[in-house]
Amino acid sequence: MNEQQHTTPQKAFAEFLGTLLLLCTVIGSGIMAERLAGGNVAMALLGNTLATVFILYVLIETLGGISGAHFNPLVSLVVLRHTSKPLLAYYVIAQSLGAMAGAWLAHAMFDLPIFQLSSHIRTGTGQWIAEGVATAGLIFFILRSSQTRASASALVASYIGAAYWFTASTSFANPAAVLGRMMTDSFSGIAPQSALGFVGAQIAGAALGVILNQLLIKNIQIGRD
Amino acid sequence: MNEQQHTTPQKAFAEFLGTLLLLCTVIGSGIMAERLAGGNVAMALLGNTLATVFILYVLIETLGGISGAHFNPLVSLVVLRHTSKPLLAYYVIAQSLGAMAGAWLAHAMFDLPIFQLSSHIRTGTGQWIAEGVATAGLIFFILRSSQTRASASALVASYIGAAYWFTASTSFANPAAVLGRMMTDSFSGIAPQSALGFVGAQIAGAALGVILNQLLIKNIQIGRD
Amino acid sequence: MNEQQHTTPQKAFAEFLGTLLLLCTVIGSGIMAERLAGGNVAMALLGNTLATVFILYVLIETLGGISGAHFNPLVSLVVLRHTSKPLLAYYVIAQSLGAMAGAWLAHAMFDLPIFQLSSHIRTGTGQWIAEGVATAGLIFFILRSSQTRASASALVASYIGAAYWFTASTSFANPAAVLGRMMTDSFSGIAPQSALGFVGAQIAGAALGVILNQLLIKNIQIGRD
Amino acid sequence: MNEQQHTTPQKAFAEFLGTLLLLCTVIGSGIMAERLAGGNVAMALLGNTLATVFILYVLIETLGGISGAHFNPLVSLVVLRHTSKPLLAYYVIAQSLGAMAGAWLAHAMFDLPIFQLSSHIRTGTGQWIAEGVATAGLIFFILRSSQTRASASALVASYIGAAYWFTASTSFANPAAVLGRMMTDSFSGIAPQSALGFVGAQIAGAALGVILNQLLIKNIQIGRD
Repeated sequence: MNEQQHTTPQKAFAEFLGTLLLLCTVIGSGIMAERLAGGNVAMALLGNTLATVFILYVLIETLGGISGAHFNPLVSLVVLRHTSKPLLAYYVIAQSLGAMAGAWLAHAMFDLPIFQLSSHIRTGTGQWIAEGVATAGLIFFILRSSQTRASASALVASYIGAAYWFTASTSFANPAAVLGRMMTDSFSGIAPQSALGFVGAQIAGAALGVILNQLLIKNIQIGRD
Repeated sequence: MNEQQHTTPQKAFAEFLGTLLLLCTVIGSGIMAERLAGGNVAMALLGNTLATVFILYVLIETLGGISGAHFNPLVSLVVLRHTSKPLLAYYVIAQSLGAMAGAWLAHAMFDLPIFQLSSHIRTGTGQWIAEGVATAGLIFFILRSSQTRASASALVASYIGAAYWFTASTSFANPAAVLGRMMTDSFSGIAPQSALGFVGAQIAGAALGVILNQLLIKNIQIGRD
Repeated sequence: MNEQQHTTPQKAFAEFLGTLLLLCTVIGSGIMAERLAGGNVAMALLGNTLATVFILYVLIETLGGISGAHFNPLVSLVVLRHTSKPLLAYYVIAQSLGAMAGAWLAHAMFDLPIFQLSSHIRTGTGQWIAEGVATAGLIFFILRSSQTRASASALVASYIGAAYWFTASTSFANPAAVLGRMMTDSFSGIAPQSALGFVGAQIAGAALGVILNQLLIKNIQIGRD
Repeated sequence: MNEQQHTTPQKAFAEFLGTLLLLCTVIGSGIMAERLAGGNVAMALLGNTLATVFILYVLIETLGGISGAHFNPLVSLVVLRHTSKPLLAYYVIAQSLGAMAGAWLAHAMFDLPIFQLSSHIRTGTGQWIAEGVATAGLIFFILRSSQTRASASALVASYIGAAYWFTASTSFANPAAVLGRMMTDSFSGIAPQSALGFVGAQIAGAALGVILNQLLIKNIQIGRD
């Protein structure tokens, strides 16, 4: 509730821990689902989806009161844009380290080589549009969540659950997730040479999300923003 | 909360955006699921169902405070029947444009030709009864939702999740959805020559939903309505 | 909220409508899932489960304020045991008619012969224990729901979602459901000659559920009950 | 709400009953899913996941007001560490008996030999890390749940739903669950010779969960704890 009572290191640690568990879940459930599904990729994406939705809900609900539960540099950039620059830097560093640690922890659990690089090429106009749409939606719904009775945890988890299926890229929508997924040569990985295109599309999408939200701010508030 | 603070263009834009994302999700997840499931149609409908349920919850929760989050001309007709006719017209136009744009965005993401027409014939008594039942239920539960502690977002999303499986037509229940789905020759499409039957059944179903709700209005209120 | 404001015919109609939609969903989603899954019975049960969970949540939430949303003679017997006998009779009649009508509506939607009888034998000690356990749990959790912050709709829907998978009988737990499922020779049906064993086990289970709840009533209330 | 009003035998009975139903669900849904899925292990884990998530939510919501709804000796140890030792002993005994009874009830429902021992070897560094991670998360999120608007029931159920997929061990995270699963030679079982490694990893994980929570307690409270 009262975020001011947590210290900056505690906030950064919450971002580290949350991003670690998020990426560990995305990558770990991808490995599990791929092993069990035996080539049924829809089944693998389904296991991946359920695990991601469930952990997002839990992480945002339990860590939101400490750090805001961003786990995503673009979310931090949008939410913290009017606060101190150093805090933003701490968040992005914690998220980046957490994302990589999450990949490594998943590999340790599944008896795989800890350090890997993905060879999964993800590129092309369709993929980039998909990442733009996915990130625009994520930022837009997070900004709108302050106007709803529902909690951000339920909204973000549900949105990502949908976006895994309706975007052609399975919705990374998060530069830290790109970094973590580069570190795994499994189902959910992305090859380093595809990373720049994804992150560029995500930045454009985040900007679009902010604009969409501005367009829908209540009339009487326009003069104030 | 206070819808009066949003301008009519903002309301229409919210309807456009919501219907766009809804149809983009329905059609995009259908393409994704069909590609991954390799002929397992139940698996494809499952992916389609999860994505639709999740996005409906998010869209109604986040846009409900602006426009009411109808995304459906029949819902607008029922909900706005006592308000101004021009507003209803704006809503229907925004929903129709949004539905088509959603199909086109899905195609862009999946590297498919943008402009398509469905060749998926959906016709016959069973299909029409199914659309009537699906729409009657949708309108009935929306009207009843004002009497519940639950939010309309959770009720509508859950209802559609059930109706995808228990109605023989996979529950379009929405003339704007028919229009959008006509624009795609993928899993979730409907051929233009089947559209009229579906929309006719939906109109009949909506009327039935209104009647069912009237029958269950509390006794002491009957004199007032 | 205030059930007294609804007339007895309205209450009975709500029970009829709710039981109709419940059975229509159970049976319709079974037919849909069986058609699409092509012999993958786990997939069929999954579609059946999701549809049932979703519709139960919606029906109990929207009709609970009118009739209590029992849709089950044993629930009515337990909940209404201290009220008038005629009301109980109306409820059971409405539920029985609704259950059969639900089966027939499902058949109409899927272009099947309207009037059928199931040939699906379900019998044996394991099945009966399963129905007893399923019904004991249902009654117990309904009685406990008055002590929780959660709504009965979420609890009952979730419980049935679990019980579809952990009981060997896929958890009918409802004599009206037995009646409705006798009327369909599809995935979710039960042969008439198996009905008596199921209903007997359900009655025993309901009694067990009442006893379990009594054992856990708070100490200071024991003297009062 | 007011746990003091329930007697110690009632609390122990609630723990017995809840652990019984939890293990009966884990094991029963595993048997059901394995039978129906015909070798599709991902499908079996999916059925297992849904049933477990649903029953955890219901059990914690309905029995939490009586005993706290631990169903897990490590949770009891952490939650009751400042209360009387005998109560803890009653809880652990009730949980252990409940876990075994749950396995036996599942076998009775599925017409299997009641008394079995698992031959499913689960061992190795990856599995132990997975159990440590799974239990650390469980304890951490339970301790954090007192700081959230969400109920512990939704958080624990969702977390386990994720952990079934992202941990290599499918997340037992509970010594009572190990005991119950030793008693079944079906999908979800664990061979007795693998039990010690799992329980050791769970104890280490629980300690880690407590430490992680300490690190994130609000600044001004550190002096008090």
